[in-house]
Amino acid sequence: MLMKPLAERMSQIAPFHVMEVLARARELEARGRSIIHMEIGEPDFPTASGIIQAGIRALEAGRTYYTPALGLPELRAAIAASYRVPERPDPGCVVVTPGASGALTLIFGVLINPGDEVLMADPGYPCNRHFVRLFGGHARLIPVGGSTGYQLTSDLVRRHWTARTRAVLLASPSNPTGTVVPPAEMSKIIQVTLELGGCPVIDEIYLGLTYDTEGVSALAHSRDVFVVNSFSKFYGMTGWRAGWLVAPQEYVSQIDRLAQNIFLAASTPAQYAALAAFDPDVTAELKRRREVFRERRDYLLPALRRLGFEIPVTPQGAFYLYADCSRFGTDSRTLVLDLLEQAGVAITPGLDFGEYRPERHVRFSYANTIGNLEEGVRRIARHLGVDSSPAPDA
Amino acid sequence: MLMKPLAERMSQIAPFHVMEVLARARELEARGRSIIHMEIGEPDFPTASGIIQAGIRALEAGRTYYTPALGLPELRAAIAASYRVPERPDPGCVVVTPGASGALTLIFGVLINPGDEVLMADPGYPCNRHFVRLFGGHARLIPVGGSTGYQLTSDLVRRHWTARTRAVLLASPSNPTGTVVPPAEMSKIIQVTLELGGCPVIDEIYLGLTYDTEGVSALAHSRDVFVVNSFSKFYGMTGWRAGWLVAPQEYVSQIDRLAQNIFLAASTPAQYAALAAFDPDVTAELKRRREVFRERRDYLLPALRRLGFEIPVTPQGAFYLYADCSRFGTDSRTLVLDLLEQAGVAITPGLDFGEYRPERHVRFSYANTIGNLEEGVRRIARHLGVDSSPAPDA
Repeated sequence: MLMKPLAERMSQIAPFHVMEVLARARELEARGRSIIHMEIGEPDFPTASGIIQAGIRALEAGRTYYTPALGLPELRAAIAASYRVPERPDPGCVVVTPGASGALTLIFGVLINPGDEVLMADPGYPCNRHFVRLFGGHARLIPVGGSTGYQLTSDLVRRHWTARTRAVLLASPSNPTGTVVPPAEMSKIIQVTLELGGCPVIDEIYLGLTYDTEGVSALAHSRDVFVVNSFSKFYGMTGWRAGWLVAPQEYVSQIDRLAQNIFLAASTPAQYAALAAFDPDVTAELKRRREVFRERRDYLLPALRRLGFEIPVTPQGAFYLYADCSRFGTDSRTLVLDLLEQAGVAITPGLDFGEYRPERHVRFSYANTIGNLEEGVRRIARHLGVDSSPAPDA
Repeated sequence: MLMKPLAERMSQIAPFHVMEVLARARELEARGRSIIHMEIGEPDFPTASGIIQAGIRALEAGRTYYTPALGLPELRAAIAASYRVPERPDPGCVVVTPGASGALTLIFGVLINPGDEVLMADPGYPCNRHFVRLFGGHARLIPVGGSTGYQLTSDLVRRHWTARTRAVLLASPSNPTGTVVPPAEMSKIIQVTLELGGCPVIDEIYLGLTYDTEGVSALAHSRDVFVVNSFSKFYGMTGWRAGWLVAPQEYVSQIDRLAQNIFLAASTPAQYAALAAFDPDVTAELKRRREVFRERRDYLLPALRRLGFEIPVTPQGAFYLYADCSRFGTDSRTLVLDLLEQAGVAITPGLDFGEYRPERHVRFSYANTIGNLEEGVRRIARHLGVDSSPAPDA
């Protein structure tokens, strides 16, 4: 029996534990069990009708050929125009990609040599590490907690910088914590990164889903940043696979070359549909949905805190709450499996998000109706044997 | 001024010269010049109506959420069932990808360590080399000519094998030559590759566009191969970005893990639309189109030979002719530019397809109407000062 070829990188690309949870949840559901889903990273709304209609019109008009590798010029222009920053990006620096995943592949493909390091927060979105590992780079995970709002700071960036560091990845709002990097700190981190000769890469996939204030793009601070965004979350187009990046001017031709080779282009019907994402009617609908997400957060956050989950910072965006569950006396993976099997509630173990205290943390998604979230909270309360009712003054 | 980070791999990822040709052609057209396009690698037919209607129905039904990373189960089953081989592949081994590009990313991502080698024919499709280079691998280009039908043979594979060889990539029918690997030779190459401990990877993107006989998948010979295919060419769905691979069973979980991380999934509307690609009505339409491609080949091949282009082997598939233009006394890049500027005909220089005598070769695409091809041939004849009319007995 011959050894089969297998790339070493695969040993560094971890499976999503949430997939195991999801598979088991589907199994239980198939047997008739009711499961409340608070594990899923996808808005529960379908794509807005105006976007779907634009997709249908594009298909009726036979828009089924390749677009240029960098995307439809009119979509690149519309994306550039959508930025509310003092100096809007040049449409020539906007690259339409197959989801934010495609954007991160292009960015790290163009930046990272084997052995190079990228600084990023732990906990963080697991794929971000894997894009770096894909190219032989090292994702240097910096432990962060409530004291820095689960985000990097310019001090942390300075302290962890090495001769091999090439880039800093920030996600604001972050998955799994929902926290944002405050604009002043964002500006400092960008400056420090550039001073040290590195590239700031900012994942703004959840920027449109910022609740208490309007989300501020890193492009407000500098043009020398890579910004990643997507039509998936705020724009509700997950399955279409359309995202984008804004690159510093001097990288655009390299990115074009790589995109021509590894993608050809993003999906054409998705690009035409995405053009409608900026229509006033659609925008109004998306803002209503954002308001629904805010209401869910405002329900779930105090409800989980009452149950005894510690959430030290109020998350300002995305649709996740990252909670310390250590007072329940079991590691988070066991808690997740127990909640699923015994209480019928699916959540995500901390293990998916990094190496810093994952056994103490779980992620709740509120991409579900308030009614379902309430039922989830009741089930968790029953399972943990605690009282879920609000205090009388609440 | 600081040096900006830039990955070394980018110096090995060449631009497509055809893009330069295409850009210049568009420029000339914008100034009112008529250009005959014989450079484009995309069918000139829109997606078949049955597929478009299925896409529209999917959108109307709100099919806009993520699918599983490996693809819609019903599409995987339909793809598996579409193989006319003695032992059909298990749907569990079929992975739906964002175009064949996505399939090649997954395969080489899972197989190739930095420094590993993949054997492939030169001339060949340029992206294939670049997927290997993306992961630090070395695309070992083996010069091939008319004597082996521009394809590798089992002898060539044996002769070029080194301790670092991990895989052999075959494209049948090939871009740019349109030639196929005969089934008996394909079987031998697969056997030799497996004996040497490597993985056979077969690009069958143009398999459906085989003209004189029915195309035979490498899956007829072995289950231990990676087969890459796409809805782009035969199925006419280029812009949708949907392809697939069939993997040996033992690689599926690794591929799943990589796909989860780097793509999430292929486009959902495209996957639902692709389900209709196997409907009898659509199949009938696609076979009519194939017949049109065959007629074009049967017109263009003798016409170019009469002009003095040497095409030693009759291409049996795809929609390309790879022609030796050395008797015209200029290198192929100059000929391409002269034909564009002076004659108004766009073709692709050999430079895009490898390092083996690119200066002597050009690629003609017949993804254009017979009328346009005839006009192209007349213009080339006039430019070269040769007679384009068929011999009296033709």
